[in-house]
Amino acid sequence: MKIGLLGFGTVGSAFYTLARECPGTEIARLLVLEKLPQADCAQTTDFADIVNDPAIDTVVELIGGLHPAYEFVTAAMKAGKNVVTANKQLVCACYDELVTLAEKQGVALRCTAAAGGGIPWLHSLARLTACDRVTAVSGIMNGTTNYILSAMTDQGTEYADNLREAQRLGYAEADPTADVEGYDACRKLVLSVNIAFGVSIPEAEVPCFGISGIAAADIAAFKRLGLVCKLIAHAELTENGVAACVEPMLFPVSGQMAHINGPDNLISLRAERVGAQSFAGAGAGGFPTASNVLADCLEIAAGCAPFYIAERRPLSVGNDGLRQRYYVRTDAGADSRLMTVREAHALAAEYKNNQQPFFMAAVAEEK
Amino acid sequence: MKIGLLGFGTVGSAFYTLARECPGTEIARLLVLEKLPQADCAQTTDFADIVNDPAIDTVVELIGGLHPAYEFVTAAMKAGKNVVTANKQLVCACYDELVTLAEKQGVALRCTAAAGGGIPWLHSLARLTACDRVTAVSGIMNGTTNYILSAMTDQGTEYADNLREAQRLGYAEADPTADVEGYDACRKLVLSVNIAFGVSIPEAEVPCFGISGIAAADIAAFKRLGLVCKLIAHAELTENGVAACVEPMLFPVSGQMAHINGPDNLISLRAERVGAQSFAGAGAGGFPTASNVLADCLEIAAGCAPFYIAERRPLSVGNDGLRQRYYVRTDAGADSRLMTVREAHALAAEYKNNQQPFFMAAVAEEK
Repeated sequence: MKIGLLGFGTVGSAFYTLARECPGTEIARLLVLEKLPQADCAQTTDFADIVNDPAIDTVVELIGGLHPAYEFVTAAMKAGKNVVTANKQLVCACYDELVTLAEKQGVALRCTAAAGGGIPWLHSLARLTACDRVTAVSGIMNGTTNYILSAMTDQGTEYADNLREAQRLGYAEADPTADVEGYDACRKLVLSVNIAFGVSIPEAEVPCFGISGIAAADIAAFKRLGLVCKLIAHAELTENGVAACVEPMLFPVSGQMAHINGPDNLISLRAERVGAQSFAGAGAGGFPTASNVLADCLEIAAGCAPFYIAERRPLSVGNDGLRQRYYVRTDAGADSRLMTVREAHALAAEYKNNQQPFFMAAVAEEK
Repeated sequence: MKIGLLGFGTVGSAFYTLARECPGTEIARLLVLEKLPQADCAQTTDFADIVNDPAIDTVVELIGGLHPAYEFVTAAMKAGKNVVTANKQLVCACYDELVTLAEKQGVALRCTAAAGGGIPWLHSLARLTACDRVTAVSGIMNGTTNYILSAMTDQGTEYADNLREAQRLGYAEADPTADVEGYDACRKLVLSVNIAFGVSIPEAEVPCFGISGIAAADIAAFKRLGLVCKLIAHAELTENGVAACVEPMLFPVSGQMAHINGPDNLISLRAERVGAQSFAGAGAGGFPTASNVLADCLEIAAGCAPFYIAERRPLSVGNDGLRQRYYVRTDAGADSRLMTVREAHALAAEYKNNQQPFFMAAVAEEK
């Protein structure tokens, strides 16, 4: 396999190291913004040198973001090259278009590392959907927020302090919005939903309520109730389509979920035949993520099927059917309310629009 | 894909149901001891009708045991047919021979369902070994013993009562030896080790100490120490080869392991690049296991590589390097001893040979 590698950041440089150690895998050319002395391979600053090189059969896109990743990935497929990417933002936003293009061009498109970092989550999900009916997916899909919530719970400290510490440790980016507001988890959920249920849902229809409004006093209140708070992305098949959202949830301190701490992820599915399954491990990081990217490449080289699944029935998100108990804390104090997911997120949006203090967390049902 | 199905027991009949619902998968002929009215497909009592049918490209072996499964599987591969099996006993005992034969014949051989039931454990392990170095595998690999230990812990009842209940519920067989003495977990461990480390170790070299000697008094002692007992299969790469054994282990009641109860499995790996990963779900049962069998079939149909990995360097098992603290209970009472795994299992064998009461459990290290 001759690879054109786009990007040499945390994941890109880790992939470079792994691919160079892997027999049969060659990095034919590396796209960089300016030439790098630390990469000992042919380099270019012009994507045309990769897309027009007939010797390159696979483009590995690790630059992230929508643009120019979108232009590069579509051009690569149009030029008959396979694409492997860890770019959840791109694949989530352009799911239909990219999968359709891959099919039309007869090339492979893989993105296992776009959700769960080093965990073979999307891959395992796709393997299962071929022979079972998945009815729910859920879990801790963002390591940054799990690190912050774990640290707040351990130390009783405030959100802002722990965000700064997460940034210092490299767990959070300089602009943490995508992580802390739940958008990153939301994209991973949309990809999981699309592959799990054989559908295509719009990212904008999935309500996200993150953790930027949480206070040490909320954590202290949860502790008194024997609960811990986790940012959970969850979705299930309902009679009317798909219910899906990202929101903080409260779990018993004695339960399994309370033991997933720091930047780790725990992602679960429920299916009619196999029942419940869960997958845990490092949800981010250069080498874990790069490992999943390389595994995708090797499966393409071994001749496996082009995309995870063939189905992508367009479907709307409807959160009226799922009613839960929520902890709600405003200026007026904290209380507990039974609401549908739609009602809860509408309430959160109202407080946000009015720029009033607000935090909520759903109480997970006992299993 | 045209399948010759061998066996119509719990897993065989579940596979029959799943495969019939799956587009592109046809059960061309079913091998049974006597014709079954409940199976609506061509049936035979003579394996020759399957092995000599050129229309059948894949044999799915779900009869279990060494013979005649060995003869059927090898004859099928010699006739140029792919083989998918859930038979841990067979693949564990004849690993080198079967993998070599599959390579020589250019057919696929898959056995994901042989370990972890419905969990895509061996599959994920193989995906990872292609791009990372796995250094340890471990976990709860047997649902029967986990059910019995969970029930003893919940209810404070004796081993024999819970074994009977497990048999009544279908979690344990009439002859429970393979499960309760750890031989079933041992076979799953050997397959995991072989695939994880790219080696081939002899099953007979892996010491097994099961749970048939456990008493309610042991469980009560563990409870007083804040510990729960699980039957664990574990192996790690050491300087001198592979350390591997099956033995009861004690975990903190507040930890993650204590939450895996009933017939569920939790299997983990550690690798240099991805760190720790774990996989949990139904470790047995007709439909979960059949689901993994069918997923193997579909991957073969999609043209994926013939066996999980190519490597199988013969390697000995050496348990001198791993020293642990053990709870040891004899007629003289219970104490705690620091021993190597080799020393502990030699001690257990001595008491067993003398038919004297004995139970031991390793104390898991805090992580």
